[in-house]
Amino acid sequence: MRIALDAMGTDRRPLSDVAGGVLAANEFGDTIVLVGDQARIEAELKNHEISAGYVEILHAPAEIAMDAKPTEVLKAAPNSSIHVALNAVKTGEVDAFVTMGNTGAVHAIATLKTLRRIPGVKRPGLSALFPVNNHRMIFLDVGANTDVKPEWVQQFALMGSIYAQLVLNCPQPRIALLSNGAEATKGNLLIREAADMLRRSKMNFVGNVEPVQLMSSVADVIVMDGFVGNIVLKMFEATAHYVATLIRQEFRNDAFSMVGGALAKPAFNRIRRQVDTSEIGGAPLLGVNGVVIIGHGQNSAIGIKNAIKQARKAVQENVIGAIRSGIKQESQ
Amino acid sequence: MRIALDAMGTDRRPLSDVAGGVLAANEFGDTIVLVGDQARIEAELKNHEISAGYVEILHAPAEIAMDAKPTEVLKAAPNSSIHVALNAVKTGEVDAFVTMGNTGAVHAIATLKTLRRIPGVKRPGLSALFPVNNHRMIFLDVGANTDVKPEWVQQFALMGSIYAQLVLNCPQPRIALLSNGAEATKGNLLIREAADMLRRSKMNFVGNVEPVQLMSSVADVIVMDGFVGNIVLKMFEATAHYVATLIRQEFRNDAFSMVGGALAKPAFNRIRRQVDTSEIGGAPLLGVNGVVIIGHGQNSAIGIKNAIKQARKAVQENVIGAIRSGIKQESQ
Repeated sequence: MRIALDAMGTDRRPLSDVAGGVLAANEFGDTIVLVGDQARIEAELKNHEISAGYVEILHAPAEIAMDAKPTEVLKAAPNSSIHVALNAVKTGEVDAFVTMGNTGAVHAIATLKTLRRIPGVKRPGLSALFPVNNHRMIFLDVGANTDVKPEWVQQFALMGSIYAQLVLNCPQPRIALLSNGAEATKGNLLIREAADMLRRSKMNFVGNVEPVQLMSSVADVIVMDGFVGNIVLKMFEATAHYVATLIRQEFRNDAFSMVGGALAKPAFNRIRRQVDTSEIGGAPLLGVNGVVIIGHGQNSAIGIKNAIKQARKAVQENVIGAIRSGIKQESQ
Repeated sequence: MRIALDAMGTDRRPLSDVAGGVLAANEFGDTIVLVGDQARIEAELKNHEISAGYVEILHAPAEIAMDAKPTEVLKAAPNSSIHVALNAVKTGEVDAFVTMGNTGAVHAIATLKTLRRIPGVKRPGLSALFPVNNHRMIFLDVGANTDVKPEWVQQFALMGSIYAQLVLNCPQPRIALLSNGAEATKGNLLIREAADMLRRSKMNFVGNVEPVQLMSSVADVIVMDGFVGNIVLKMFEATAHYVATLIRQEFRNDAFSMVGGALAKPAFNRIRRQVDTSEIGGAPLLGVNGVVIIGHGQNSAIGIKNAIKQARKAVQENVIGAIRSGIKQESQ
């Protein structure tokens, strides 16, 4: 298998990216195609040993800033690592693309310039894997679409369900809608209409869930509009970080607690890993004609390797083919 | 001053409610009018001593279940504690109403049956006081309106700002819109339109904020639609509780951590109080013709007393008059 990895994705580009690519090549024996500035990648590769698999370079001179707006990105010359890599997926030169880069740019270039939508898909959805109690739920949309129609939500449910089944080892994914209450009478207009559609569909819809239920793995695929999804993910991260900071402050203020805090340090480190969404590596952009996994710019080499692992599985299980037939069946 | 307190509000009705009312009477020297089943209130009052102020009973035989739907509540006979108390505010028999009861019922009965809207108010907004770093931000709407128009959001900002200034000791409240990113280009259609309106208004609008900024007190009044507001509050509570549970589990799994955990217990208790939104007691329903403070059903007597303290200040500072003139000026 050949997987393109954005060498210019992380905040520590190309260091973490190249390290993650080499780790994946050595562990999986695949060909990792590092996409980015050839000279910088070659220089960085000198620090690594490739013991299994292959590492190639695909030159892409331009860089996309993490804060570049999708509109700017679309106007820019098509020689950024993201653009070049997505074109390589399109031509079949590689089987998948993994990046820790600018999410909005990947979404815009994939949807509007390169891979484009799978026939029948109204809007591709950006997903995130939400980690609680060692269970990974797939959330979508978490940011690609801020103003959403019920039929798009229904497709998010379908695509998320296929991904959970084929890649996340979840034989019969339970689909839920995120709402402000579990009762069917709650929700805004979008949620009530989407719930009606999901209830009438053949999908395994288990109803609406509210935030507290997200913490107890009541479902496997959680669908919502991208505005709410993005805020909910960010609220989880911000609150977890805030509570951790409060705990550290408390420990500094209190002599007994200070001792306790020092002893408890390993436990806190384990917790930080459990609530850290970036440990998972990445999550798919679903609905485009190719496997695309997007992760956080702060990912380490291990996170990147985990993202590549997901991409491999998505290719092996032919997720794109399954979504294509799923959407086709739905529209019949 | 005469303040009506729902005696049938908390999950431990009428115990906590009566205890909170007596605490407030003794501390503030006001008249607390306990509204609910006379016999049950009288029986409970025998456990208390009234050393200052006055406690009266206003009989209301019917109870509203915590899970009763607003539509059921509106059809029910108007002799519930909520209905009787709101009528007493309307007739001027009491100056304000404080309840730990069913929020949807209070909102429906206040808006549609008793107090009704202040002239010019499009939709009353339900608020919550969000506690971070010993700073209280007022959030609204957090659940009264799930499908919202930009001009309603603008009124939420105005009403929240008046309340923050007069009751929360915040001389020049900074208003922010909750969005999925701080940049003006982010947000859904509602947020972008509401931001335009707020920027053109005379209000102290400081821009859009995303969840991480909520943790650092960047603003005093945070406005949003009630669907998002309700989910964000619930996400905060659920995540804080989840992280606390993870910590307890970690401490049980690890001998060193177990010692640390025992020593650190007082610190954890202080943290729990800091992230517990119910410690604050309650928050106002803004936009109706009367002071109404609604709190969580799990409130203790101290939380209830704090809610009454807010109601007193809102009456003293004539919040309703200020909103009335604010809305009038706005429409000129």
